Amino acid sequence: MNALEWQGDSLKIIDQTKLPLFLSYIVCSDYERIVQAIRRLEVRGAPAIGACAAFALVLAARKNACLPKPDFLNALRAAKVEIAGARPTAVNLFWALERVWRRAADNENDVAKTADAMEAEAVAIFNEDIAANKKIGEYGAAVLPEKCAVLTHCNAGALATCGWGTALGVIRAAFSQGKITMVYADETRPLLQGARITAWELVEDNIPVTLVTDSTAGWVMKKDLAQVIITGADRIALNGDTANKIGTFTLAVLAKRHNIPFYIAAPVSTIDFSIKTGEEIPIEERAAEEVRSVLGASVAPETVKVFNPAFDVTPNELISAIITEKGLLYPPYEGKISSLKE
Amino acid sequence: MNALEWQGDSLKIIDQTKLPLFLSYIVCSDYERIVQAIRRLEVRGAPAIGACAAFALVLAARKNACLPKPDFLNALRAAKVEIAGARPTAVNLFWALERVWRRAADNENDVAKTADAMEAEAVAIFNEDIAANKKIGEYGAAVLPEKCAVLTHCNAGALATCGWGTALGVIRAAFSQGKITMVYADETRPLLQGARITAWELVEDNIPVTLVTDSTAGWVMKKDLAQVIITGADRIALNGDTANKIGTFTLAVLAKRHNIPFYIAAPVSTIDFSIKTGEEIPIEERAAEEVRSVLGASVAPETVKVFNPAFDVTPNELISAIITEKGLLYPPYEGKISSLKE
Repeated sequence: MNALEWQGDSLKIIDQTKLPLFLSYIVCSDYERIVQAIRRLEVRGAPAIGACAAFALVLAARKNACLPKPDFLNALRAAKVEIAGARPTAVNLFWALERVWRRAADNENDVAKTADAMEAEAVAIFNEDIAANKKIGEYGAAVLPEKCAVLTHCNAGALATCGWGTALGVIRAAFSQGKITMVYADETRPLLQGARITAWELVEDNIPVTLVTDSTAGWVMKKDLAQVIITGADRIALNGDTANKIGTFTLAVLAKRHNIPFYIAAPVSTIDFSIKTGEEIPIEERAAEEVRSVLGASVAPETVKVFNPAFDVTPNELISAIITEKGLLYPPYEGKISSLKE
Repeated sequence: MNALEWQGDSLKIIDQTKLPLFLSYIVCSDYERIVQAIRRLEVRGAPAIGACAAFALVLAARKNACLPKPDFLNALRAAKVEIAGARPTAVNLFWALERVWRRAADNENDVAKTADAMEAEAVAIFNEDIAANKKIGEYGAAVLPEKCAVLTHCNAGALATCGWGTALGVIRAAFSQGKITMVYADETRPLLQGARITAWELVEDNIPVTLVTDSTAGWVMKKDLAQVIITGADRIALNGDTANKIGTFTLAVLAKRHNIPFYIAAPVSTIDFSIKTGEEIPIEERAAEEVRSVLGASVAPETVKVFNPAFDVTPNELISAIITEKGLLYPPYEGKISSLKE
């Protein structure tokens, strides 16, 4: 179950909008198709779209490998702007683009060699994410109690990353250690990534999972059905404020009330070292139609106004720890997060 | 826009499962069809199902009006058990049934006259609810600030009651006074009564409404987009603990964190004077299929386990006031609620 597969001259992705009914693939042989896939959420999840952006720039490089270096760079600059515009919140996209761009902009004048170096960088990003997922799983599982039920939101699993997931990486590692009695998966409206993708991943892995509406999470905590909350992240500020799928903030408030630990699981690539607080994180607002309809069927008056932010920001004070591949960060986060910058 | 219309020999109801795409009616000429309508949620909302239960017992009486009084009562007892079993949480159903049953069980030996008295009682319940809605609206609007945006959950409007609604009654009264700048309507998964019914009612009334997913409510509060939360109720205990649509508890927790008033608007018929706390309220669990699918379309693995409670209980400490037709009740609720018993 790989969200992404680099095929040398194209990127093969699972079309996540079709899950769980259909397991179908999209082969992207130009960067524009990858941009489209990110926009349409055919691929989503901060680490996965980071890797996609990296491979998109590689495809743009291959396409322009016949040009002299200055023209090559100009073409790549244009592609980079387009790729960067695909989605605004997950910082991994910009981080991965910059890493591959640095290879493009180095002193190598041979354009083919430059493209090779870019490809190697994109592949490194991909492989590092797999390794980071593993470490996040190990570090996260170590702090979970011997027996617990975990609640998660949206999908921070294999389909959101290049490996076995961040939040679901922790759950997979803990399950293999016999610690997980149940995973409660929020369905995660409007696009139901929890129902369509997380539930599907866990059913496929034979990990016990119970699907709930987003509104049921509070009652799950009140009834002590879950003892730990773990989600992924789309962007983490230096002070620990974390943007993640809309509804994450609510879970953190609920966890605080119930004295339940609330963990963020994310690779260092999700940290935005350029911003001090969550106030600076741009929050994507998506189309009204995502809320007015479900799977194309209308569920509300056609003309009704909609407010549809795709993310919210959880303030650092509500986060018990941030689980990264470099270990766990505990509050206060100031200084600890910035020390991870390489 | 009347959820219910008593036609003397039948009860005409709007089929709420078809809204907002189709405004269609069901004419129930026997009590069994009313029971079915309540079970299927063709009619829902605590005060509305209370009135439905009352008229259902009247239809059972008319059907058995040829029997001698003892046999008539036996037939009604059986019908009453069936009606009472339609849904478990909203107490108005049992309260209304008891009121009409007391007319059946009085000293009148003429069965036709008994049925007339029962009908008069059911009509009184219906009319009292309309009046109660009006008073709730007046009392509630009086405590709202001069300008505010309100967030509500599920549907506590005209389609949940016999009148203009409880939570939406307050909103309608306040809007007519120029106080309401916006109503945020939670869509209210799994059955989307907020999207399908509340948004529709407000659009029809030209009251400004913005539809949000349930997970967005926390962000709406964080961003100070709503300054007041008002919901209806399905059952209120003597200590003020209140059962309402799943997700209400979460809103109350969020409101507390943001220092936003959280109001319950409900008629006295929603109070269960027989229970001390919310712990005693039975919470209906509904079919997994409601969550696994939306409007009949599958959105999750077919085999995934689901936890689908239709209601949760908000503890009294999170409720700023309970708005009834007898005025506002403020915490602590002990004693104040019991004093409303007639």
